[in-house]
Amino acid sequence: MNDSTLAPVFAHIEDNRERFIARLMDYVRHPSISAQNIGIRPVAALLKGHLHSLGMTVETIETPGHPMVFGQLGDDPARPTILLYGHYDVQPPEPLEAWISPPFEPTIRDGRIYARGVADNKGQHFAQLLAIESLLAVHGGIPCNVKILLEGEEEVGSPNIAAVVRQHADKLRADLVVTADGPMHPSGQGTILYGVRGVASFELRARTAKRDAHSGNFGGVMPNAVWQLVHLLATMKAPDGQITIDGLTDDVLPLSAMERAAMARLPLDLTAVMEEMGMTALDAPAERGYFERLMAHPTLTINGFHGGYGGAGSKTVLPAEAVVKCDIRLVEAMEPDAVFAAVEAHVARHAPDVQVVRQGAMAPSKTPMETPVAAVLRSAVAVSRGGQVLEIPSMGGSLPDYVFTKILGVPAFVVPYGNADEANHAPNENLTIDCFMGGIRTGAAILSGLGAWRS
Amino acid sequence: MNDSTLAPVFAHIEDNRERFIARLMDYVRHPSISAQNIGIRPVAALLKGHLHSLGMTVETIETPGHPMVFGQLGDDPARPTILLYGHYDVQPPEPLEAWISPPFEPTIRDGRIYARGVADNKGQHFAQLLAIESLLAVHGGIPCNVKILLEGEEEVGSPNIAAVVRQHADKLRADLVVTADGPMHPSGQGTILYGVRGVASFELRARTAKRDAHSGNFGGVMPNAVWQLVHLLATMKAPDGQITIDGLTDDVLPLSAMERAAMARLPLDLTAVMEEMGMTALDAPAERGYFERLMAHPTLTINGFHGGYGGAGSKTVLPAEAVVKCDIRLVEAMEPDAVFAAVEAHVARHAPDVQVVRQGAMAPSKTPMETPVAAVLRSAVAVSRGGQVLEIPSMGGSLPDYVFTKILGVPAFVVPYGNADEANHAPNENLTIDCFMGGIRTGAAILSGLGAWRS
Repeated sequence: MNDSTLAPVFAHIEDNRERFIARLMDYVRHPSISAQNIGIRPVAALLKGHLHSLGMTVETIETPGHPMVFGQLGDDPARPTILLYGHYDVQPPEPLEAWISPPFEPTIRDGRIYARGVADNKGQHFAQLLAIESLLAVHGGIPCNVKILLEGEEEVGSPNIAAVVRQHADKLRADLVVTADGPMHPSGQGTILYGVRGVASFELRARTAKRDAHSGNFGGVMPNAVWQLVHLLATMKAPDGQITIDGLTDDVLPLSAMERAAMARLPLDLTAVMEEMGMTALDAPAERGYFERLMAHPTLTINGFHGGYGGAGSKTVLPAEAVVKCDIRLVEAMEPDAVFAAVEAHVARHAPDVQVVRQGAMAPSKTPMETPVAAVLRSAVAVSRGGQVLEIPSMGGSLPDYVFTKILGVPAFVVPYGNADEANHAPNENLTIDCFMGGIRTGAAILSGLGAWRS
Repeated sequence: MNDSTLAPVFAHIEDNRERFIARLMDYVRHPSISAQNIGIRPVAALLKGHLHSLGMTVETIETPGHPMVFGQLGDDPARPTILLYGHYDVQPPEPLEAWISPPFEPTIRDGRIYARGVADNKGQHFAQLLAIESLLAVHGGIPCNVKILLEGEEEVGSPNIAAVVRQHADKLRADLVVTADGPMHPSGQGTILYGVRGVASFELRARTAKRDAHSGNFGGVMPNAVWQLVHLLATMKAPDGQITIDGLTDDVLPLSAMERAAMARLPLDLTAVMEEMGMTALDAPAERGYFERLMAHPTLTINGFHGGYGGAGSKTVLPAEAVVKCDIRLVEAMEPDAVFAAVEAHVARHAPDVQVVRQGAMAPSKTPMETPVAAVLRSAVAVSRGGQVLEIPSMGGSLPDYVFTKILGVPAFVVPYGNADEANHAPNENLTIDCFMGGIRTGAAILSGLGAWRS
């Protein structure tokens, strides 16, 4: 990266602050609610117009659901290529009465733009587009090849992203994938995320008779579906917190030294977290560090357990039927199919009558911190944000990053541009103007830095 | 008992068949629905009239709920005294559309009277009154003292019976208590029941944080309320079916030799029971006999387990809150307070954060089969029904018989007059005319036999 190249770009961005804000507000005024199929194609068309105006070749990638928009600028094999990923669909705005200003009438209050989708994800990928525009305006070109893929169904679980990446692997090929999504740390420090946990959801269904029975007439005689699941679950995770499903953790890769070091540098106010959640203790096992729990280990969470009577008072019923919903968060290099197979084998061994129903799954994703191109992002975030860069080896939640790291085989990074209190998925979603402007600068710095890389 | 005394009484009963049926139909035409407070006092007044017409001294025993009706005939200290117990309240008739004939328009079809309350319990205690009337008609007197207590809130759980028995112990004192309630065996064999299991209901409530969390962001960090209860429950009953709450079974009395012998004589078509319920196995422990499960052992039944997500599909939530409802069926001589204390001590040891909420409880009751006056019932049932008498040491369910055996200190027996398919609490409740007539005969034979006893 060259400061003399980037400084005039940053100046240009600052000079255009009011126009950029106004253009973002124009963009988020258009609803594009994937779950309700509202406004999707008009916003896709609008986006194609934006990409065209940047000189990109533009294409709509149809899916069985909502279309994706793909754009490309530059095709020089001597230059590195970046794939920017984002999504133009937004969450439903309900409950409407909880919004201070209407969700699709963007409003500025106290240095923040309030609108549905302004942070998740329109403001963030729009910052990428303005970064490209600013580099073009100042230098007349981008020093790397840029591809951009904007999905229209991220908020409904990206049901088609894997198939699209598989089918269009050649078109999407790049040296790295960068996603600007989610919030930065509350401190406002620039953040780079290298990985996500995967997830495998399933149900355990027990049925011990045709119908519920009276606990007096059948207590001791009829097997109880709730007890059956309680005893099965007790074989799957011990009270000390260790998951005891045979073979489940065979594929777990330990954190690297670099990841452990980065984890140790992450700020944490544990007292504040626990107070905020009203927790008096951390989950077992007690000896694990906070981030180690989220990054280094799979979890077996019971999402719900329902069987028998749940109303007021007591009812002397013996339930014939019960259902448990679980998710397992996967760490690198666990694979959903192997995880499901391990669960099924365990249940077949311990409670053969219990039915296992596979639900959604997503592989974990991890880009090694040692990956050379990561240095470009570290410098770009540092120069555009100032201060220390927060590097997160893996987050606890799940995103379909595996489609880039595993299907496409390309290092993938999440570089969030949003503020920590962006209120994603909630009423009064917002993006601070500082974060928005910082995002444009970071986008420009990444493209500029990538141009200098290997060149 | 003297056949020459009883034969003309049985003849009188048979001669009055049509009139007795018509009078029962008149009685059940009057609704007396305790849960809905419909018709209670009018039916209590009607009953008082019946008792008066038998020459009884009659009294209303007021309670904080619905009144009880008490009657007494004879006060000769040289004669034995019987207390007959029954209840004049009935279950709500809903769903009305499921009745073939309206619930309070008694109708005879195929040898059965259909009406709400005809079996549970109006037809059964009305048979007792007709037995008294028949003995009076034929012999001009009853050879024992008769007391009768008819409750108005049995169908809402008899909330005041214990207090009434405690308060009126002298008035209610008797040599034995006989309750005609419930069904006989499907074979139609006359049945004597010597005991019931007790019950102690409670909730286990877990809360691990102020609110539910995302299983990705907090999985491995925040304790899961459902897991907390699963692990606690797993310490309370082993997969082999043994209850593992310390001290819980200390007070259990083993069955006597006479009880074991009676249990061994009980007919059982296990295949039919299992097919009817759609069960493929009996509950653990496998080695216990069918009736031993219901009579000789306490049970720990989970009535309901509810926590977290229960809707369609999956939801990656980590529940902060969960509730389990349980009941423990108690066998002689377990006491509810000691049972609750054992549960609380166990939970305090294994999961001190979990709250135990005591709910309803009822002590078990057992009258030893060796009790001398039981011989009167055996003969009476045999002579009035014919065939073998079925003697049940204890039934699996719970009734407040302990108020007679433990508060009043009197041997108590249930001698059911109903048919096995009486449809108690359900639409199309019915009593076969054969069962009704047999009940009158049994009632007369008991009173007649008791007169001869010790005399």
